[in-house]
Amino acid sequence: MIYKYVFGQPIETQAVVMEVPKSEHELSVMKVEVQEDAIRLSCQMGDEDVVFGLGEQVRGMNKRGFSYISNATDDPRHTENKHSLYGAHNFLILNRAEKTKDESGNRTFGIFVDDPGTVIFDVGETRMEDLVITAGADCVIYVIEGESLKDIVKQFRKLIGRSYIAPKWAFGYQQSRWSYMTEDEVREVVDGHRKNGIPLDAVYLDIDYMERYKDFTVNQETFPNFKEFTSEMKEQSIHLVPIIDAGVKIEEGYPVYEEGIRENYFCKDEDGEDFVAAVWPGKVHFPDVLNSKARAWFGEKYRFLMEQGIDGFWNDMNEPAIFYSEKNLKKVLEELEGMKGKNLDLNAFFHMTDLVAKLSNNPLDYQSFYHDMDGVRIRHDRVHNLYGFNMTRAASEAFDQIEPEKRTLLFSRSSYIGMHRYGGIWTGDNNAWWGQLLLSIQQMPALNMCGILYTGSDIGGFGSDTTEDLLMRWLEFAMFTPLMRNHAAMGTRHQEVYQFEHMDVFRNLIRMRYGLLPYIYSEYMKAVLNDEMYFRPLAFDYPEDEQAYRVEDQLLVGESIMIAPVYTQNAKGRYVYLPEDMLMVRMKSLEERVCEVVERGHYYMDMALDEVVIFVRKNYMLPLAVLDEDVRSTSDVNEDQLEWIGYTEDVAEYVLYNDDGTSRKYTPESEWEKIRLTKEEFDF
Amino acid sequence: MIYKYVFGQPIETQAVVMEVPKSEHELSVMKVEVQEDAIRLSCQMGDEDVVFGLGEQVRGMNKRGFSYISNATDDPRHTENKHSLYGAHNFLILNRAEKTKDESGNRTFGIFVDDPGTVIFDVGETRMEDLVITAGADCVIYVIEGESLKDIVKQFRKLIGRSYIAPKWAFGYQQSRWSYMTEDEVREVVDGHRKNGIPLDAVYLDIDYMERYKDFTVNQETFPNFKEFTSEMKEQSIHLVPIIDAGVKIEEGYPVYEEGIRENYFCKDEDGEDFVAAVWPGKVHFPDVLNSKARAWFGEKYRFLMEQGIDGFWNDMNEPAIFYSEKNLKKVLEELEGMKGKNLDLNAFFHMTDLVAKLSNNPLDYQSFYHDMDGVRIRHDRVHNLYGFNMTRAASEAFDQIEPEKRTLLFSRSSYIGMHRYGGIWTGDNNAWWGQLLLSIQQMPALNMCGILYTGSDIGGFGSDTTEDLLMRWLEFAMFTPLMRNHAAMGTRHQEVYQFEHMDVFRNLIRMRYGLLPYIYSEYMKAVLNDEMYFRPLAFDYPEDEQAYRVEDQLLVGESIMIAPVYTQNAKGRYVYLPEDMLMVRMKSLEERVCEVVERGHYYMDMALDEVVIFVRKNYMLPLAVLDEDVRSTSDVNEDQLEWIGYTEDVAEYVLYNDDGTSRKYTPESEWEKIRLTKEEFDF
Repeated sequence: MIYKYVFGQPIETQAVVMEVPKSEHELSVMKVEVQEDAIRLSCQMGDEDVVFGLGEQVRGMNKRGFSYISNATDDPRHTENKHSLYGAHNFLILNRAEKTKDESGNRTFGIFVDDPGTVIFDVGETRMEDLVITAGADCVIYVIEGESLKDIVKQFRKLIGRSYIAPKWAFGYQQSRWSYMTEDEVREVVDGHRKNGIPLDAVYLDIDYMERYKDFTVNQETFPNFKEFTSEMKEQSIHLVPIIDAGVKIEEGYPVYEEGIRENYFCKDEDGEDFVAAVWPGKVHFPDVLNSKARAWFGEKYRFLMEQGIDGFWNDMNEPAIFYSEKNLKKVLEELEGMKGKNLDLNAFFHMTDLVAKLSNNPLDYQSFYHDMDGVRIRHDRVHNLYGFNMTRAASEAFDQIEPEKRTLLFSRSSYIGMHRYGGIWTGDNNAWWGQLLLSIQQMPALNMCGILYTGSDIGGFGSDTTEDLLMRWLEFAMFTPLMRNHAAMGTRHQEVYQFEHMDVFRNLIRMRYGLLPYIYSEYMKAVLNDEMYFRPLAFDYPEDEQAYRVEDQLLVGESIMIAPVYTQNAKGRYVYLPEDMLMVRMKSLEERVCEVVERGHYYMDMALDEVVIFVRKNYMLPLAVLDEDVRSTSDVNEDQLEWIGYTEDVAEYVLYNDDGTSRKYTPESEWEKIRLTKEEFDF
Repeated sequence: MIYKYVFGQPIETQAVVMEVPKSEHELSVMKVEVQEDAIRLSCQMGDEDVVFGLGEQVRGMNKRGFSYISNATDDPRHTENKHSLYGAHNFLILNRAEKTKDESGNRTFGIFVDDPGTVIFDVGETRMEDLVITAGADCVIYVIEGESLKDIVKQFRKLIGRSYIAPKWAFGYQQSRWSYMTEDEVREVVDGHRKNGIPLDAVYLDIDYMERYKDFTVNQETFPNFKEFTSEMKEQSIHLVPIIDAGVKIEEGYPVYEEGIRENYFCKDEDGEDFVAAVWPGKVHFPDVLNSKARAWFGEKYRFLMEQGIDGFWNDMNEPAIFYSEKNLKKVLEELEGMKGKNLDLNAFFHMTDLVAKLSNNPLDYQSFYHDMDGVRIRHDRVHNLYGFNMTRAASEAFDQIEPEKRTLLFSRSSYIGMHRYGGIWTGDNNAWWGQLLLSIQQMPALNMCGILYTGSDIGGFGSDTTEDLLMRWLEFAMFTPLMRNHAAMGTRHQEVYQFEHMDVFRNLIRMRYGLLPYIYSEYMKAVLNDEMYFRPLAFDYPEDEQAYRVEDQLLVGESIMIAPVYTQNAKGRYVYLPEDMLMVRMKSLEERVCEVVERGHYYMDMALDEVVIFVRKNYMLPLAVLDEDVRSTSDVNEDQLEWIGYTEDVAEYVLYNDDGTSRKYTPESEWEKIRLTKEEFDF
């Protein structure tokens, strides 16, 4: 059951697609205080209550013990003290333990705060037992009650609409770096994979493919024959995926800039002038993607690249990130000038370093420009979290015109609930830290709750140097994420897998992904079409099992399997909790598998650096594609030749979804393939 | 057996106290390459080989998979990618697994690289199987072989001399903050503990007790009657522990500055002028503590505070940290001036932010000043890692004169092996992150290997806001660290335990420490006097147990117990490996204990937020003091009233060390108390 509460005069965010009447009763699951500038919601949490959700944030699956602030921020250090990352995903579920329910009649509920400005979720940071949500005075709040965690999520997902569907090739392995600078460098990357028998479906073009970081341009010196190059790559089954940034360079003669100026499509400052911020190219204007005309105009620009054969994009810097604003930089440089010749003690010196550090993503800058929301002038900070959403929506709505039949790959860095209908996200500029691998594991189900299904983290870590073992362990997890992309920053160690010594291990790992493709794709599509979660914490499937609520480092992936990735360096194994009897499938490669039934319970299990262990649930099945030795890409995977792994004492069943992977015609449920195997038909 | 190898013309670091003749044979455990500017040592590591050591560094107990650079650095973000923290601890042990030994005749060995400049330990970062050590061309290398990990450490510890002994009061609970600004604020902190029945032995004075950050001054406005205040505190059993910084403020009329100038006791720049760096007070000179006269002079300055009743110090900023050098700041401000009015694209902008960020701790600054090592002029970077060591030695050698009979508390931020004879360390400016609690657990045994026994981390985390649960879990570990200090940075949430709601839990936890005091002190003293480790990884005591080498989050503490702290948020338990049958002692408070014998094996164990679980080894014993309800400090602990916890099927034994805790007369081994209890004499 969904209850809708409206406070003040909310801005229409388009997060929700379903008509819900206003609730006739007062909001009861939390105490509501309407303050002058804010709505404050609060309730007490019992000892055993667990909070799930909030999407892209730091810390564990259980969000208790910290404050999370929805305020899309370009911050490349995802340490535990960060309150905001790139997205704003204002949905959580407070799961009441039996004990709490009994004591006070409190109920389990989900809550979605539809407010595109800053929202604070203090989940027991200030007081361990208090959940306090502070939203703006104008917002819509949805409270969702249901039979189970899964049911609440499903209702929420129906409310916010069906998730984006990526083309099947985007479920292959993808390689990125900031940046492959030339056509030849891209060719080298492709060859590095091809000649070593490592499947690969896509190579990414980071900011340097552009001419002076101008959106919708291609550097003619380094990519002189882009259209030909794109088709050369396609012949090798490689999709090129260029980046698009939010800021449009200010440069006379650059058509995108000139059109934007002419048509008044850029965000304005206090004085009605086009707002000047600086990002990669230096000074830019931000297209006002909250304005429907500007959005249509900006989306249409993607055509330039699509006409050259591009069928995938990643939208970046769309929090929007600001290196500095013209005005603030001027002020800071003037203040710094006054420091010359002075004795700077700690206060003066920290003030100085702060001035410079706070040039970027400065709240004052976000308060100093405006949108024209189809006639209504709105200061940016009030709708800050909608920017990335609407940049991505711009692209998606244009694709509906440009390529109405075909799926186009699209994902974004910044997002707000609702954007999941238009594209996926990647989890931004993480680091080559073991802790970030764990974070990625923990973020996945929280993102899925919000409908963000096409997602994954930068494998190996974006910032700082990766190590060979970290890359292996990361791949062992990421082979299950829909977006499986290796990406690294300028200046870091090269981390294409062929750069390392144990190529055989990497080849085996990436081939496993291609073997898993029929399952991953089937489960992804079913999750989309049924409004379900592809990744789930154990508690979602084993709600009666108290231990399941404690497990922070295992996931259910689709309906059939559980994974327990290794995420600590030098580990040769890890502890695993089995909430029921399962079939342990230990793989050194797709073909080299050892299966064993393991009973419910706690175990320490060996997991060597080159091993992947999958747990198949009783009476469920895992299809694996039989791969040719020379499989190069998703298109080489023969989906008709499947092996079935499973364990049952009776009958196991599986519903296999498949389709052509490129058109927008999805297989109707009536045509989904139902497989049913008896105990005797399995090796296990 | 210790083998000594001398390369080039090494600088005498005083790390080693034992005469060792040069080895007559070539170094054989690693391949040696003598290069023009460096010595390169390398060997292969087998799959199961483990590397222990390197003291204060990031990552796990097993150091494999990363590069560690000995280059003392003031860096307050101890993330996994940091190659250098505050100390330089160039000792490691490569433990060869049986498999490796068999295959190639490789042996387990310890290696100490006595080189006070930059030394790089690539422990399988570049190539997973390669250990590569790169030292300067002039260095002494000691290779130590022995019967066991423990034996190698013991030999090494004899080589480097007996560890510093802290006064017993310094094993009490201590409270710090940057800064308690006034006498009254200190009184409030003491009262906060006293009125809530929370024992406390010391309060720290961070930089603001000084007059304009000048060493050996007291701010007369905020601490107007310092001597009286010190004795007022002593009457409440509170020791005040002021900070001393490395840099001496440049200020006419400030006697320490003027003496230093007059006597030529400061480090010089290229031109022979006193080198100007800036730290807290702005511009300072660095006392040349590598010069014996300057060292004696600087040490003697501590007398000013000791005469006012101070008996403990912490030496800070002695890497030495440099906010900026006068010359570099001038250059940077000039360059910034030229940026005015320009369009800064990413390269220009990152260059700008880099210029400012790299003002601090800039390698070029460390190459631009000089020491007079008793007649020999040496550029700082060659001896960089000796600075903190010798600042602390300065103090310690002065204490021998000023208080020859008494122990004075002394610890340092920066250190080099050898400094452990003069004082302890704290592990610097950590953060209120759960990951930093784990790091602290993992650092302790590595520090102990290098003789650094009086040590601990900032409980609750120094930087960023702590949470109540993190502080509890941290105390549950830190109650075992010799230095048990809660410390937090300016601007963070107040984290004295009485600031939180569950005061009863904090009181119980801190009282447990006082109950453990007889054991902790006894084990600390025995570790010092026998050249042993107080904290040990499991592999040190269970070398035949393959699983023991994998355990990264449990420690043996002294001879009798093992701990398995909880270091993840919202955990209600954790997995524990018992390498043998042990007595599990579950404590809600010192008095509220439940004991149970648990067999060798892997377990998931409940550990509630308010519980401490200690594992007592079979045939060993744990003494616990019976505390009065109103125990306020270590001096209130009645050490004659002990309870004995243990588990044996026959007889358990314990050797109890004790002494007056303040004088430098230590109890000779012949007088150590031997306790022997039979099975029947235990409840367990």
